[in-house]
Amino acid sequence: MATAVGFAGLGNMGQAMARRLLEAGFDVSVYNRTPEKAEPLLAAGARSAATPEGCVAGDGVVMTMLADDRALDNVVFGEHGLMDRLGPGGLHVSLSTISPQSARRIAIAHSERGAGYLAVPVFGRPEAAAAGKLWAVTSGPAAAKERVRAMLAAFAQGSFDFGDDIGAANTVKLAGNFLILSAMEALAEAFAMVEKRGISRSRLAELLTTTLFDCPAYRTYAPMIAEHRHSPAAFSLSLGLKDIRLVLAAADAAGAPMPLANLLHDRLLSLQSRGHGELDWSALALAASRDAGLD
Amino acid sequence: MATAVGFAGLGNMGQAMARRLLEAGFDVSVYNRTPEKAEPLLAAGARSAATPEGCVAGDGVVMTMLADDRALDNVVFGEHGLMDRLGPGGLHVSLSTISPQSARRIAIAHSERGAGYLAVPVFGRPEAAAAGKLWAVTSGPAAAKERVRAMLAAFAQGSFDFGDDIGAANTVKLAGNFLILSAMEALAEAFAMVEKRGISRSRLAELLTTTLFDCPAYRTYAPMIAEHRHSPAAFSLSLGLKDIRLVLAAADAAGAPMPLANLLHDRLLSLQSRGHGELDWSALALAASRDAGLD
Amino acid sequence: MATAVGFAGLGNMGQAMARRLLEAGFDVSVYNRTPEKAEPLLAAGARSAATPEGCVAGDGVVMTMLADDRALDNVVFGEHGLMDRLGPGGLHVSLSTISPQSARRIAIAHSERGAGYLAVPVFGRPEAAAAGKLWAVTSGPAAAKERVRAMLAAFAQGSFDFGDDIGAANTVKLAGNFLILSAMEALAEAFAMVEKRGISRSRLAELLTTTLFDCPAYRTYAPMIAEHRHSPAAFSLSLGLKDIRLVLAAADAAGAPMPLANLLHDRLLSLQSRGHGELDWSALALAASRDAGLD
Amino acid sequence: MATAVGFAGLGNMGQAMARRLLEAGFDVSVYNRTPEKAEPLLAAGARSAATPEGCVAGDGVVMTMLADDRALDNVVFGEHGLMDRLGPGGLHVSLSTISPQSARRIAIAHSERGAGYLAVPVFGRPEAAAAGKLWAVTSGPAAAKERVRAMLAAFAQGSFDFGDDIGAANTVKLAGNFLILSAMEALAEAFAMVEKRGISRSRLAELLTTTLFDCPAYRTYAPMIAEHRHSPAAFSLSLGLKDIRLVLAAADAAGAPMPLANLLHDRLLSLQSRGHGELDWSALALAASRDAGLD
Repeated sequence: MATAVGFAGLGNMGQAMARRLLEAGFDVSVYNRTPEKAEPLLAAGARSAATPEGCVAGDGVVMTMLADDRALDNVVFGEHGLMDRLGPGGLHVSLSTISPQSARRIAIAHSERGAGYLAVPVFGRPEAAAAGKLWAVTSGPAAAKERVRAMLAAFAQGSFDFGDDIGAANTVKLAGNFLILSAMEALAEAFAMVEKRGISRSRLAELLTTTLFDCPAYRTYAPMIAEHRHSPAAFSLSLGLKDIRLVLAAADAAGAPMPLANLLHDRLLSLQSRGHGELDWSALALAASRDAGLD
Repeated sequence: MATAVGFAGLGNMGQAMARRLLEAGFDVSVYNRTPEKAEPLLAAGARSAATPEGCVAGDGVVMTMLADDRALDNVVFGEHGLMDRLGPGGLHVSLSTISPQSARRIAIAHSERGAGYLAVPVFGRPEAAAAGKLWAVTSGPAAAKERVRAMLAAFAQGSFDFGDDIGAANTVKLAGNFLILSAMEALAEAFAMVEKRGISRSRLAELLTTTLFDCPAYRTYAPMIAEHRHSPAAFSLSLGLKDIRLVLAAADAAGAPMPLANLLHDRLLSLQSRGHGELDWSALALAASRDAGLD
Repeated sequence: MATAVGFAGLGNMGQAMARRLLEAGFDVSVYNRTPEKAEPLLAAGARSAATPEGCVAGDGVVMTMLADDRALDNVVFGEHGLMDRLGPGGLHVSLSTISPQSARRIAIAHSERGAGYLAVPVFGRPEAAAAGKLWAVTSGPAAAKERVRAMLAAFAQGSFDFGDDIGAANTVKLAGNFLILSAMEALAEAFAMVEKRGISRSRLAELLTTTLFDCPAYRTYAPMIAEHRHSPAAFSLSLGLKDIRLVLAAADAAGAPMPLANLLHDRLLSLQSRGHGELDWSALALAASRDAGLD
Repeated sequence: MATAVGFAGLGNMGQAMARRLLEAGFDVSVYNRTPEKAEPLLAAGARSAATPEGCVAGDGVVMTMLADDRALDNVVFGEHGLMDRLGPGGLHVSLSTISPQSARRIAIAHSERGAGYLAVPVFGRPEAAAAGKLWAVTSGPAAAKERVRAMLAAFAQGSFDFGDDIGAANTVKLAGNFLILSAMEALAEAFAMVEKRGISRSRLAELLTTTLFDCPAYRTYAPMIAEHRHSPAAFSLSLGLKDIRLVLAAADAAGAPMPLANLLHDRLLSLQSRGHGELDWSALALAASRDAGLD
């Protein structure tokens, strides 16, 4: 008999991950605030849940992939939320990029009802999720990690563990997103400068991604930035801004100044104020071009 | 009979490159301001030149690999400099990271005497040079590129051309070094933040360089920065500061603000003012740690 | 018969303001978490209150001057807090530098019990308070402003009104503190640069404060920064960091990037991480000196 | 008999200063590259000089007020320049905002011909010059300062001396201009933030310039920035950019990072790249508004 798993949050990422679970043979119950997003999965064999608690299945493992801390709070603590159902033996596998504080707070709330919490933020864009090529970052109780190993393998090509501290995986995920945005900013500034010198942005992107920066982050973003391709959004600028706010909050709490993160924040905030929040987060790069008078 | 080539400038990089030329069968005449540096090469079969002009050999191809614009100026325009000897048919292959303006100025001076100039800055550290694994960036006359193809192949695994404009290759090289320093700064800030959260710097470095940032720049520098290994210097912080000054000069002349380059400049300048100029340029990362109160 | 007024929060500022109220003939009841701070005022004729609600007197006007949003929350919403007593006819005059959000939240809570709230943050250091030379910034209901006019005149030489919006005065106060910190940073960078050029910091301070910058903010801080005099603290670096965090939160919520505020934040955060939180907030200037290798 | 003085450079500032010298009874010979600018002064009694050397009069005191280092170099070292005429007993009083290096270089050149050099950069806008209300900053030989005392008094209300080092006065002048630009940036960020909160920019300007910042720099620029009044230019944004470049060059040479100066540079460079170089330098403030989406 197939192992049951619930899945709440069917955005670009969540849909691809839930589908991979289905394809791997799990018995998946899905919930999304706007139910239309669930339809392709139902057609592929998923069970429909009308509420978050509705997708808590027999074994009691439920995964969440929500946009931000607030959306996750609604699914956990809101009406018919996970908190109403997840009890002893239950396990909440939280895949979202949220603050370490939220992670700890939710973990404590679950533990008061006998349920567990595992932080498993993931790296990769929707196409990587669809190909089972995400990277998972885990932190929390060892037994929980063991319990979900096969599930994570459905969508992740590998996993990096950061120990027992519930917030650690989220901090690491935030650090990773900061590094991606930093790479984008560096590319944006370099491309704007060489463009004003009459040098091809794309040719420089080619050199970089063939040599020193021949890795997924740069191979994904250098051509997009060189060619100003920022829509449709695989991950929106508004979500990127949300993440950099979490980075800065973590840095502030840690007493560790992050001037580069401040720069990224200001770029994203300005672009959002100017109406570009729905572009891909790589649109961060528009700021450097605009500052150089290139728009 | 072996093709002759002169080589002036035998620092960490120059030595390794000249040796590769020797091993590839070229007849190499070497010059260095402090002659001791030449000895290992002489022992390996190189000819000794007492002055820059002395290494201009039969065919008239001479390569230079100097620390900065000023050192190159001395070798070109100083007493017994290249300018005294390089005439029609001569070709100066300039491997140094210098300003595009210097490149153009020297190219014009050579052309007034009938000699050519080719800009060939290279990416890679001394160990890459020794293994013939550098990447060359070229700009200048097409015929000159053809003429030196076999020579470049002695130390570079590949080459990227940026057309006729003499200054283009240098601008590209500066952009590349800016991107490396930017990656270091991002790593430094991320590591300082997670360290203050009780997370292992090295474990994060491992995650990054196995997944999103699995490429030479990060594989080289992430472990060094995670472990605070900044000496001995393969490329010194002082030289990194020199490069970022050239980046900022290029950005200013292009009318393209580069706030991230400013941050890098201030980090490096402060570290140099505090006496750390002789560390590896990856010691840039000490600033973020210090600002977080981690020193 | 003297008009009664309560006063909670007897730090450097609060003590001086409460004393001015006493001297102006008001019947003042004072509360402080650590009661020793109240003693000099009791000796001067103030009444003692053991709890915040205890200082809500006949007429029901109570002033608060607390360190931050949390301390104010305790006094308002904590056990025996203002909320337990302040009802119809009561008026909470909030002098603290807090977030506009806190101001609005507290105002709403009071209004639900029929009491009023007036935001009156003040500019000036303790010695200005003691001399009745503060500047008050007001926002909130017009009748409340009229009611407290004579009280404010006891410690403020003048008052600037910003209309009905409860949060406006706090936003203005935050902007003012941001401007003071910005002036300090500019002075710090200028002094560090000229010092390394062999020019007297104090002589430059004298020129500036006699000519272009002949105004209280610069006359107060330029000599302190020129001479590295940062203790004892009239206003601590930790409180300055608290304020710049409120500035950045307001800027983020407003969609207005403030890169200079980010710089100030990073300076203060680093100094606090390095153990300098108890110095005067003008110790911000130590960062520029340290970066220049001058410590 | 009236004391003779030459004056080269009749821009907004130079014209007003030369006129004050005339009005104070000096016998003034004026030179300007475009001679039309001299006409109002000739009508007021000045003598006309067709070349820079032509305005070196009997006593041999000549003042220069040029836009930048290059313009000054032309007047000093160009054809019929000061260098061709100024000999023993001559004195070059240099009023321009130039780099300390230029000042030292020109002083040496003069001294080789027996002439003196005095650095006297001034603070104040054209209307202050016209009213004799500038502030002069001096450095150089004591005897030269004594010799020009009465001349400086014609346009300056006071004078600050910084000793013998020829470059000191220029460094101080650069520091002063940096402080003015910093004040503008702080005002610009604060105004953009409060505006997005529905608060009047002008009302905040009024509060600031009546209280903490009641001094010439803020009284001049706060209203201009509050009301976006940036033309006509009393001092152009392009000249402000020139000055901040000199500040950064001085900071770099001194080993003193100035992150706030970098921010100012990037703002000004971007505005110039976007075609706003001819606005008043207070147009720096447009950047913060634009970043907040307010344009």
